[in-house]
Amino acid sequence: MKVVVSYDGTRYHGFQIQSNAVTVQEVLQQALYELTGESIVIVGSGRTDAGVHARGQVVHFDTNSTIPSERWIPALNAILPDDIVAVHAEKAGDDFHARFDAKEKTYRYLIDNGAVPDVFQRRYAYHMRQPLDVEKMNEAAAFLVGTHDFTSFCSVQTDVEDKVRTVLRASVERERRWIQLTVTGNGFLYHMVRIIAGTLIEVGRGKRKPQDIPDILAKKDRRSAGRRPRAQGLTLWEVKYPNR
Amino acid sequence: MKVVVSYDGTRYHGFQIQSNAVTVQEVLQQALYELTGESIVIVGSGRTDAGVHARGQVVHFDTNSTIPSERWIPALNAILPDDIVAVHAEKAGDDFHARFDAKEKTYRYLIDNGAVPDVFQRRYAYHMRQPLDVEKMNEAAAFLVGTHDFTSFCSVQTDVEDKVRTVLRASVERERRWIQLTVTGNGFLYHMVRIIAGTLIEVGRGKRKPQDIPDILAKKDRRSAGRRPRAQGLTLWEVKYPNR
Repeated sequence: MKVVVSYDGTRYHGFQIQSNAVTVQEVLQQALYELTGESIVIVGSGRTDAGVHARGQVVHFDTNSTIPSERWIPALNAILPDDIVAVHAEKAGDDFHARFDAKEKTYRYLIDNGAVPDVFQRRYAYHMRQPLDVEKMNEAAAFLVGTHDFTSFCSVQTDVEDKVRTVLRASVERERRWIQLTVTGNGFLYHMVRIIAGTLIEVGRGKRKPQDIPDILAKKDRRSAGRRPRAQGLTLWEVKYPNR
Repeated sequence: MKVVVSYDGTRYHGFQIQSNAVTVQEVLQQALYELTGESIVIVGSGRTDAGVHARGQVVHFDTNSTIPSERWIPALNAILPDDIVAVHAEKAGDDFHARFDAKEKTYRYLIDNGAVPDVFQRRYAYHMRQPLDVEKMNEAAAFLVGTHDFTSFCSVQTDVEDKVRTVLRASVERERRWIQLTVTGNGFLYHMVRIIAGTLIEVGRGKRKPQDIPDILAKKDRRSAGRRPRAQGLTLWEVKYPNR
């Protein structure tokens, strides 16, 4: 099965199962166990960190259940807590793999640039009242598009060796108080989107120039990029797979 | 002082102070005490029920504090929990009264009409997956505009005798999955907006006709109107005062 889930990451220690903390994966697997009686291990399109949200996380799993496709969503949502919602379910080919087959992932980082926080978005946006030059941030984002070594935009706490990724689209837009960074790529390194967001925020505040981005990339040094802002502003927006 | 506050009503037993439950008024008064050292009693533009939210609730209070106007907002927000945000503060005339002077109040009732709940709006919208005829709901809303006896749209658990109110505007609009009822009036009776919302939902589902509204009003009987839907969809949107 292939299932699309959305979740409010506020009270979870990320997607991936851990021994001493509540994770989205654990809660989903528990719901699947209650529903099917099977000990199902799910595979997500990727991890999300503690406090990061998802609008369209994709998971796959194998099951012997005979539940018809259209019953999975209501049945799962009847069991799941209200901060995890199963959005769409379909039978997937035996060879479908939520992580390895992912072609494009889109993340959104949302900044609440109002004078005071919007109480209804406080869990889903990073509040910053300082003025931000969105045009400059958008110019800076454009320098990230392409295939680059993103070592400078990756946490040093990673085992991944190949830090070359392709960013397909990156833009920053303002709508009233909301400033939205949208980044689409073929894959992302540990903390990559938040380090990008933090660097663009420094551009927006005039501490860096858009033209600094190529230099930061060239340095291949985490210390050359900006600070990593809070997880709560980040949402895994969409994961795309090749058409079959 | 006149202060505009927004709050997420989810964890509060309404606005008005109670002995055995946490209310917005109590938390605000506690914050004012911490800030000024004074035991301040605030007056709101009106109560909101348990679970009801506010985007622009207005309160007034007297204080001997010499805190400058522009410092109230940051100082209050530094003390308040993150589900209550002080949005705007200004010195008000000694005769300003948040309740008695209110000229217009606007409430919004939000319905999430998606196939499954939007996880990020789950606390602020009432989820209904059944199809709703929004055009008919909007037609029905128009019959509420004007000065009427709203007994049929008022909880029987009220002491208020005069049930005549003036609804200035009432409309229902859809934007993608979101159906929004907006009602503006000179004042509202206990449960009035939610009973209106419930009645319009029954119109939207084809159980009543828009033309039934005048009959429901004429009956002056709570049983003639629809069921009261959940509090979480309701937000006190804005309170207006006469220009000075």
